[in-house]
Amino acid sequence: MAKTQKDPTESRLTFGRRLREERQKRGMTLEDLAEASGITWSYIAQVEVGRRNISVDNMHLLAAGVGVALRELL
Amino acid sequence: MAKTQKDPTESRLTFGRRLREERQKRGMTLEDLAEASGITWSYIAQVEVGRRNISVDNMHLLAAGVGVALRELL
Repeated sequence: MAKTQKDPTESRLTFGRRLREERQKRGMTLEDLAEASGITWSYIAQVEVGRRNISVDNMHLLAAGVGVALRELL
Repeated sequence: MAKTQKDPTESRLTFGRRLREERQKRGMTLEDLAEASGITWSYIAQVEVGRRNISVDNMHLLAAGVGVALRELL
């Protein structure tokens, strides 16, 4: 499928906002979550502000990294 | 980030299975959902069996296509 630049969906923005909330609630830094998930902190930072159209597998890793089920971040 | 081939996460498999369930419950064919979501039926078929590491924006479009919130598919 062609990769076109469209407006981010509501789900993308919700995931980013909820991920940041859960990360901060646990007192985790971006570096802490990077270590826990195996995803770079710079990528996570962009995900949190909705700048990346993240894949389901990486969403799963980040949810596990903060210790919640993925559905709780959506 | 390097794109490596790993085992699909549980979230990927759950999303595919739940999407197929909700699509079939509504009597929608792959072609119907393709029309409703703007995503090709061949891609949707692969997503339903966990063969694609789908992005959050496309998950959002497919959830909207079957008429449920994304969190209900995870």
